[in-house]
Amino acid sequence: MREIVVGAAQMGPIQRDEPREAAVARMVGLLERAAREGCGLVVYPELALTTFFPRWTMTDDAEIDFWMEREMPGAATRPLFKRARALGVAISFGYGELTPEGRRFNTSILTDRAARIVGKYRKIHLPGHVEHDAARAFQHLEKRYFEPGDLGFPVWRSLGGVMGMLICNDRRWPEAWRVLGLQGVEMVLLGYNTPATNSQRAAEGPEERLFHHRLSIQAGAYQNATWAVAVAKAGVEDGHPLIGGTAIVHPDGQIVAEAAGEGDELIIHPCDLDATVFGKRTIFDFARHRRPEHYRMIVERTGAVPPSGADEHSHPAPEAVGTK
Amino acid sequence: MREIVVGAAQMGPIQRDEPREAAVARMVGLLERAAREGCGLVVYPELALTTFFPRWTMTDDAEIDFWMEREMPGAATRPLFKRARALGVAISFGYGELTPEGRRFNTSILTDRAARIVGKYRKIHLPGHVEHDAARAFQHLEKRYFEPGDLGFPVWRSLGGVMGMLICNDRRWPEAWRVLGLQGVEMVLLGYNTPATNSQRAAEGPEERLFHHRLSIQAGAYQNATWAVAVAKAGVEDGHPLIGGTAIVHPDGQIVAEAAGEGDELIIHPCDLDATVFGKRTIFDFARHRRPEHYRMIVERTGAVPPSGADEHSHPAPEAVGTK
Repeated sequence: MREIVVGAAQMGPIQRDEPREAAVARMVGLLERAAREGCGLVVYPELALTTFFPRWTMTDDAEIDFWMEREMPGAATRPLFKRARALGVAISFGYGELTPEGRRFNTSILTDRAARIVGKYRKIHLPGHVEHDAARAFQHLEKRYFEPGDLGFPVWRSLGGVMGMLICNDRRWPEAWRVLGLQGVEMVLLGYNTPATNSQRAAEGPEERLFHHRLSIQAGAYQNATWAVAVAKAGVEDGHPLIGGTAIVHPDGQIVAEAAGEGDELIIHPCDLDATVFGKRTIFDFARHRRPEHYRMIVERTGAVPPSGADEHSHPAPEAVGTK
Repeated sequence: MREIVVGAAQMGPIQRDEPREAAVARMVGLLERAAREGCGLVVYPELALTTFFPRWTMTDDAEIDFWMEREMPGAATRPLFKRARALGVAISFGYGELTPEGRRFNTSILTDRAARIVGKYRKIHLPGHVEHDAARAFQHLEKRYFEPGDLGFPVWRSLGGVMGMLICNDRRWPEAWRVLGLQGVEMVLLGYNTPATNSQRAAEGPEERLFHHRLSIQAGAYQNATWAVAVAKAGVEDGHPLIGGTAIVHPDGQIVAEAAGEGDELIIHPCDLDATVFGKRTIFDFARHRRPEHYRMIVERTGAVPPSGADEHSHPAPEAVGTK
């Protein structure tokens, strides 16, 4: 038994004019409750300090950089680190990162129980678009404001296990989960801000969005025999609804704890990292079952390339076996 | 609208002493019903002609080869091909294949509406084990009787769309779905024989097995924006129960038709291949969103390799950013 009591700290909306200090005060409140309940790790959402600003079209660099953190911790976040260290609780949360070179990333960090940052991940699968798109019901400009992450999908030995991070849209990409799985990941921490409707298909509402969210995290956990802790910023930000659905997923793919609402809400589960062992030794023992010689297209091709030729052209040609 | 009316032809059990001719007669019966209902394609299970023989430990080559087909169609299967051609219905089913060189594969074929074989797939992810394992509640000797497939994951332009095949355990491996997705697959045909309990964990019964089955096919369909047609051989074969759960999955991941029982049962759905377009052009537009430079581990490593080092050793080292 290698148990981590995990608190998944869903956050309700953060309006555009709310200061970071207000968000951090809410995070500290959730941390205090988690500590009282015995949590050793508290996981917060993607972009936990501000509204989901990529819904707004901005052109001015100073205006964009307002949403970024130049240092971590910085003035606004230091109270959270200080309290986490005092309580001996590890934390993980997301924020917009501005590097000294002026590069911007959608970033998450993981600390140890002394509030030292032990891991950093920069989101690789940025959804959305670069230019304002009037055809959409609303904007999703992550590809405008961030570069794709340049740190790969690292894992860290921390809290007695092998920890990894993904961010939001990464959860829909099995490649991301698999690269973590191939490093023996035992717990994936994943924050998200997911609009409650599809900006390009109005009929796709919160129920289907939650279905896709759950499907992705449950499949990723099951197929890599890992815990997953997926944490929403939820609710209505300046008129734009985000789904809730914060969940802790067992390595067998079952959701063992799930948020009920769309506000600040703490869900807790004692996660035994040894529950990952059965899957990793049997059906998902990669060493025995994977066949990378047949996976090469995954790295040799980016976009889909359908076969050319007319119908019933076989690709590649099978043996010539017809009916007699 | 590019519609294929698909019949997913679940088959109930085939006992060990039942001849192929009896199985084929049942397949023809399902075909006749499907044709009356307007189906253009009927999909049958993995190893559709015989019992799931890998549960039996055999050492004699002749005894093993009894379960294999030396030609397709052969004497037993020719009536099925003949009836399919007469009805103008394409078919897909699985069987044990013995090549002229004496190699054995777990194989599926796809025909066109003239019953000509246009595609062949040999199962790549063989589950189970090579040697008799007394520690298991029952045997699963696919790795003993078959070689891993050597044809990759091909697709075929057929029936107006891009068709692919997977077999049984392949459905749990996102790499398999992704290689099909990278070739623009629009419909994945997938037969299975899945024991209703886990031979290595008695507590894992049919409900959890069906959950993992659905999770895998729904995630594979959604994450590649493809239809999936998953067809069981179900029910109790010589005392060994197999799950049902035959299902047709929409490219948005939702199950649109599902078998109710564990016997011979036909479920039908009109599948519009154009329903794959939205996903392929938006959230799963691979060309815009995939980042293969970060996926290399998927082909460079077979088994999982956890990071070495003590707890809280960072891998790779992040920038040195601590609390101040």
